[in-house]
Amino acid sequence: MINHLFTTNELKVEEIQQILADAMKFSEGMVWKPEGQMFSANLFFENSTRTKCSFEVAERRLGLSVIPFEVQTSSVQKGETLYDTVKTLEAIGVNTLVIRHGQDRYFDELVGRVNIPIINGGDGCGHHPTQSLLDLLTIYQEFGRFAGLKIAIIGDIRHSRVARSNADALTRLGAEVVFSGPEEWFDQHSLSSQKFKPIDEAVLQADVVMLLRVQHERHQKKGSFTAADYHRQFGLTLDREKQMMSHAIIMHPAPVNRNVEIADSLVECKRSRIFKQMENGVYVRMAVLKRSLESIQGGYTNENSYSERQLSSI
Amino acid sequence: MINHLFTTNELKVEEIQQILADAMKFSEGMVWKPEGQMFSANLFFENSTRTKCSFEVAERRLGLSVIPFEVQTSSVQKGETLYDTVKTLEAIGVNTLVIRHGQDRYFDELVGRVNIPIINGGDGCGHHPTQSLLDLLTIYQEFGRFAGLKIAIIGDIRHSRVARSNADALTRLGAEVVFSGPEEWFDQHSLSSQKFKPIDEAVLQADVVMLLRVQHERHQKKGSFTAADYHRQFGLTLDREKQMMSHAIIMHPAPVNRNVEIADSLVECKRSRIFKQMENGVYVRMAVLKRSLESIQGGYTNENSYSERQLSSI
Amino acid sequence: MINHLFTTNELKVEEIQQILADAMKFSEGMVWKPEGQMFSANLFFENSTRTKCSFEVAERRLGLSVIPFEVQTSSVQKGETLYDTVKTLEAIGVNTLVIRHGQDRYFDELVGRVNIPIINGGDGCGHHPTQSLLDLLTIYQEFGRFAGLKIAIIGDIRHSRVARSNADALTRLGAEVVFSGPEEWFDQHSLSSQKFKPIDEAVLQADVVMLLRVQHERHQKKGSFTAADYHRQFGLTLDREKQMMSHAIIMHPAPVNRNVEIADSLVECKRSRIFKQMENGVYVRMAVLKRSLESIQGGYTNENSYSERQLSSI
Repeated sequence: MINHLFTTNELKVEEIQQILADAMKFSEGMVWKPEGQMFSANLFFENSTRTKCSFEVAERRLGLSVIPFEVQTSSVQKGETLYDTVKTLEAIGVNTLVIRHGQDRYFDELVGRVNIPIINGGDGCGHHPTQSLLDLLTIYQEFGRFAGLKIAIIGDIRHSRVARSNADALTRLGAEVVFSGPEEWFDQHSLSSQKFKPIDEAVLQADVVMLLRVQHERHQKKGSFTAADYHRQFGLTLDREKQMMSHAIIMHPAPVNRNVEIADSLVECKRSRIFKQMENGVYVRMAVLKRSLESIQGGYTNENSYSERQLSSI
Repeated sequence: MINHLFTTNELKVEEIQQILADAMKFSEGMVWKPEGQMFSANLFFENSTRTKCSFEVAERRLGLSVIPFEVQTSSVQKGETLYDTVKTLEAIGVNTLVIRHGQDRYFDELVGRVNIPIINGGDGCGHHPTQSLLDLLTIYQEFGRFAGLKIAIIGDIRHSRVARSNADALTRLGAEVVFSGPEEWFDQHSLSSQKFKPIDEAVLQADVVMLLRVQHERHQKKGSFTAADYHRQFGLTLDREKQMMSHAIIMHPAPVNRNVEIADSLVECKRSRIFKQMENGVYVRMAVLKRSLESIQGGYTNENSYSERQLSSI
Repeated sequence: MINHLFTTNELKVEEIQQILADAMKFSEGMVWKPEGQMFSANLFFENSTRTKCSFEVAERRLGLSVIPFEVQTSSVQKGETLYDTVKTLEAIGVNTLVIRHGQDRYFDELVGRVNIPIINGGDGCGHHPTQSLLDLLTIYQEFGRFAGLKIAIIGDIRHSRVARSNADALTRLGAEVVFSGPEEWFDQHSLSSQKFKPIDEAVLQADVVMLLRVQHERHQKKGSFTAADYHRQFGLTLDREKQMMSHAIIMHPAPVNRNVEIADSLVECKRSRIFKQMENGVYVRMAVLKRSLESIQGGYTNENSYSERQLSSI
């Protein structure tokens, strides 16, 4: 069976643990390569630096040959559908695809019709599983567990792919998730099992303050907040940071709107794991690519290249 | 002498046979690499998925280092000519170029002035030799010969680079080519030696039904056909497919306009070789690149990597 | 200490000599590779063929893995700053960056805050150190020295990154630099130590006639010259070329506006080193990348791969 990765919801807890364990090993120097020359392509129908470059690094670390694909100069401009584009790349020998697309659940039309594994790099306002997994890895690295942790996810809940993916996975792994931010951006239906709290209360009690990006590009009309207003009401200000517990950490999927979601000087403060998240993104994506490629053929691990560490407690 | 590839017309029958023989060997696993590190670049002044990605895969399979070149961010935007761009890439050490350009016979100004082999990836409404060669390979794989085959090329003859290239090569290899489609899109002069037939007759008698893409982007003004009209009058409908001989196959250079040139459900039907054509594109391009690179230096074949098959009958 | 390269002004004479010595060795076949897999990325916020492709070739010759970065499809489009973009690439494991940016001294905000070496591929109307170094290499190859040479830099002095970088370096290396071109394009303040001469006098006495590109894209309003006017008044015409000393050479950073800065037929004449400059660009960029990478980790030279030549006289 082909191991696609479309959402974290579809991953069993054991599968999440396996991916995190592999990611940990990659962070410690594990070398894994598929057999023979394997090809990947990254189809990004939306702008990206972090996710795309992170996959590009991960693919090359695994020794893959990456076929460049630019939407703007592809036959998509001649009206070719996503399905036909994907089948074309499959036909010419690409072995795995990463896709980011503005349409929610773009992958539904591909499932069962494509013979190569697809990794979702973000779909509309839907899911962003590798972002979620890198967040999980960062939290696990910090605390060595999920059970009992309090995670406050703060901001533009409704438009966030990250909020959706993380709330589900963290809850299943035993953490407690609360939301905060503008109430009008909180979608009661899709996140009904979660609690909503005022920001000052959420920040005070959280082991992890996870800020979301205000996604200007997804708001149909100009929001009702100025940057300064948003920052004062819902951002991590210098004052709110002082209220955090001493061991608590700050996370943000980036790109950061400085002085909106978070005070400029906190982006690289001691509590911040924002750049650590980016680093972890590479390891998680290597693990996810390994999982996909192993579902279609073998690979080999150079066992001498790293010292395995016990991860049974994830 | 440098082995450029601009048109199939300029290739002798023996040269076509040699390229097809090499492509067959690549499809069977032959490994050929040039000596030392060799560089290629793909200059696509028109949009493409299939052709560009196919060359990108072919180049990497041959172990070439591919230098990315994006027209939109190049000095072409400062007014640099094609000649100066090509000479620049030659000067910095690129060993072979693939060029697609909107101008017919763009290569005429390059011949004799450039010291690296150029492969034409499509010129205006002129030629598209690697598409033609992959069509030939697909037909040969199917029938084991060209002599005596009836090939119906149907559609937008006048704007098609494929029609032009294929008609010439197939005729020289012993096949019989007939054309069909809108009569106003049939250019009497350039294709005068070929026959024009009504579509139902053409489909009935053909061993190969080769459909052409309606190239909206090349029609100066909106054509006189709606999609439904075109499909009914000149498309491969479900009814027409039933009239085909039992052994006959369907080909299309893609991207397909579904339900225009061909009924949606026929694109991946048993007769269809549309995705096989794409796969063959990689082998043909590997063969063409090998031919070009061998004209400027040596290379080596790993003879043990495949079992050679007799191709004397091509 | 990290070896960035922002301007040639900041390089000591000995450092320039070391880079040129390494570039000469690379031109003679020296092989140098960093240890392990190293990543680079080329961030070009302005259009380029020569500089970008030249770095792409240089990086691959050194065995680097190049992470593609297209400004137009990056998070820069979401408003991400240069600093955050650079820190992101650092976090995901990119080991060195080449940046071209339209803002003068864009690098000032990066110095001391970034832990990977940055090579300036051109900043606004400021500097273009690798262009300057390749010009120096081309001159040294020709004359075997700088002391006592007369270099005439002719054209759009004010907007030229090359004029600025070259005037400083050449003077420090012992050459005499004179400027010519439209007087209104000559910035007295920034180049006060240099001499301005009428073009015919400058051409007559020069060992090197270094033409500058008329940078249409940098002139705020349409200049006061037609192409023909400029050519007649300030260009290297066929007549002026005849006045050059027999041993004198012609240089131009390209892309050339043919029949503006230089008569069309002189671009590839015997005196012209314009394409030699491009070839040298690769060697110089290999040397500069080597210098940067050596400042963060080791590397190895295959000593048997070339015959070292004495370069003590640079």
